[in-house]
Amino acid sequence: MISRSDLAALDARDPLAPLRDRFVLPPGIIYLDGNSLGAMPRAAAERVRRTLDHDWSQALIKSWNSAGWIGLPIRVGEKIGRLIGARSGETLVADSTSINLFKLLTSACRLRPDRTVIVSEIDNFPTDLYIAEGVASLFPGKLELRCVRSDEIEAAIDEQVAVVSLSHVNYRSGALHDMARVTRLAHQRGALMLWDLAHSAGAMPLQLAACDVDFAVGCGYKYFNGGPGAPAFIYVAQRLHAQLATPLSGWFGHAQPFAFDPRYQPAAGIERMLVGTPPILSLVALDAALDVSLEASLEQLRAKSIAMGEAFVTLVEHELTSFGFTLASPRDAAQRGSQICLRHEHAWPITQALIAHGVIGDFRAPDILRFGFAPLYLRYAEIGAAVHILGLIMADGRWRADCYQTPSTVT
Amino acid sequence: MISRSDLAALDARDPLAPLRDRFVLPPGIIYLDGNSLGAMPRAAAERVRRTLDHDWSQALIKSWNSAGWIGLPIRVGEKIGRLIGARSGETLVADSTSINLFKLLTSACRLRPDRTVIVSEIDNFPTDLYIAEGVASLFPGKLELRCVRSDEIEAAIDEQVAVVSLSHVNYRSGALHDMARVTRLAHQRGALMLWDLAHSAGAMPLQLAACDVDFAVGCGYKYFNGGPGAPAFIYVAQRLHAQLATPLSGWFGHAQPFAFDPRYQPAAGIERMLVGTPPILSLVALDAALDVSLEASLEQLRAKSIAMGEAFVTLVEHELTSFGFTLASPRDAAQRGSQICLRHEHAWPITQALIAHGVIGDFRAPDILRFGFAPLYLRYAEIGAAVHILGLIMADGRWRADCYQTPSTVT
Repeated sequence: MISRSDLAALDARDPLAPLRDRFVLPPGIIYLDGNSLGAMPRAAAERVRRTLDHDWSQALIKSWNSAGWIGLPIRVGEKIGRLIGARSGETLVADSTSINLFKLLTSACRLRPDRTVIVSEIDNFPTDLYIAEGVASLFPGKLELRCVRSDEIEAAIDEQVAVVSLSHVNYRSGALHDMARVTRLAHQRGALMLWDLAHSAGAMPLQLAACDVDFAVGCGYKYFNGGPGAPAFIYVAQRLHAQLATPLSGWFGHAQPFAFDPRYQPAAGIERMLVGTPPILSLVALDAALDVSLEASLEQLRAKSIAMGEAFVTLVEHELTSFGFTLASPRDAAQRGSQICLRHEHAWPITQALIAHGVIGDFRAPDILRFGFAPLYLRYAEIGAAVHILGLIMADGRWRADCYQTPSTVT
Repeated sequence: MISRSDLAALDARDPLAPLRDRFVLPPGIIYLDGNSLGAMPRAAAERVRRTLDHDWSQALIKSWNSAGWIGLPIRVGEKIGRLIGARSGETLVADSTSINLFKLLTSACRLRPDRTVIVSEIDNFPTDLYIAEGVASLFPGKLELRCVRSDEIEAAIDEQVAVVSLSHVNYRSGALHDMARVTRLAHQRGALMLWDLAHSAGAMPLQLAACDVDFAVGCGYKYFNGGPGAPAFIYVAQRLHAQLATPLSGWFGHAQPFAFDPRYQPAAGIERMLVGTPPILSLVALDAALDVSLEASLEQLRAKSIAMGEAFVTLVEHELTSFGFTLASPRDAAQRGSQICLRHEHAWPITQALIAHGVIGDFRAPDILRFGFAPLYLRYAEIGAAVHILGLIMADGRWRADCYQTPSTVT
């Protein structure tokens, strides 16, 4: 068992503990949803305030040069590149994860014109599947989406497959794919490999270049703490840049956007994945937020994330045995990301009751309680307190109160 | 001729004059580039600060419901809809203008599967052409972009045309198309009509519904003052909603995004044009900024914009005759938007010298000085002062100084 003093000792020797002060966190709240919306770094808020008070209102249009707005997609992309094991010049910030998936899947199909299949996982995050459906719809009769279960993926990658598109960490269960192994297998069979890093980037070391990954996308607003709806990132291995052709050929991806050339000429590098004018207020927040991630060691982040997950599972196994929870995440920490999911038939009202008692996790249909552990700012003591509060809510049945039953549109 | 006291008199009786105080403007600057990046409304900055200080940092993930983030694309779209003469439910805020063009051009081609041509104008804003090229590239041999001169458009709309895609106001010359006439002609020939309103929305009354326009896109960061790279808008006539199918089928456009259904089912209305998670910091700024536009009468905005343009042209014609400027905008105010362009072989260094002297306009390659008149916050006196300063710079040749000659990447 793990005692309260064990958790206090873990906090006392946590090398990442000083980073908590880089964030503004609401008092009295245990926030286990940083994998959905990361907490606010103080520096991100400062940067946005400066952008309002000076760059937009005072310098106005000149800020495209003087405040460096024009270079932000590349500069912020470089920061993310260092956090995902990319080479310099392989990562860019732009648009949303969904739109970046579209750019890459269309590019992939053009790079493998004789192949007819996109492989994905039936339990992938839905937008990854929806976008693949959308791409397949552009080539009727010539391209299909082959959706399989996790344990069928390797068998599904055959000589017809243009691209394998998977989430590195499953959004619901937290299950982690072996990036090196699946990428190697895809390449052996002549397919390209695309990883969605939404639930792993910022929470663990990643080695995109070392794994020879072709394509990746991911989120700015989860473990990178870039703010609600922060722009997403896109990674393309350098060896593919010259052949990349997305039909989203917008002016910011032109070799010379401000020459106002009537013909599209793609930029030489990853910049050709830009489309339109980036949302600067959101982008500067992400830029500043990433500096906190860059201060941390990714190995230390991963170690803390695993230790928190282990503490959580151990406490649930010991304190909540009689309440009907089952673990919906892999029990082996090496096979999961930075989150733990519990299955319970009343997951929705229990999540609502937890929120009302100051523990913010989230619900994923139909029966999952999801708890994310953002190692940059969480304390071990909070993990203990969260399980304790969950026990209280279950013990006296207060989650059955009417006020926790009403469904909401968003969770 | 127009005297300084004439301009003072125009300011004194300007019904829109009180709205200038809704903006933060840099002291000592005459800002004639609101058509590139609108000035900052005080309310936009306040709203962003509240989003940092409360909604993101304190309420965190709950703000998707409690702060109404989830409904912003529709709510902000409704505001824009009122400003462009759309019906309720026809306008949405999402992504960038370029990406919205892609959604609509692909949808248009699917609505006219037997037609093979997109008509546009060779002098359209380049990204409009680049995106049309990108869409055409998806249907090799079956779809082409037919780019013609402004005076050739009507003749170019024949029975092969799926969609006519034009900018309502030309980004360089300010020339204004007759929306009702061209839309009617397109419909007579069986084509769909798409208008890019980047340089007209927010500066004049528009009647999308009355003109029976099929599709439109436009900018949040020009006359709507939504901030740098503010999200763009997209309009689709209600009668087409049920048939709309974009390959950018992302989860925010799903009928039930939070059901996490593995199959894409588009939302019933304009919501199906949503793709990924919207950039909230940028979106709330636009939301608050639009309230200033909604306070104004669009007829008064247009009248002031025309009066400012007339004053500017008259002053240039009288004070700057000997300096080699020619008018690159239509002389008839009814045929142009809210900007005046002057052509000069040394447009670049003259623009730089003007900026150094506190008059912000911009340069458009190869030889255009562009001056935008944002009627929400400009004063007539500033128009007079801008022409006066331009005269000073030309009279003693100070624009020839070395410091104004260096080319920049962005203007």
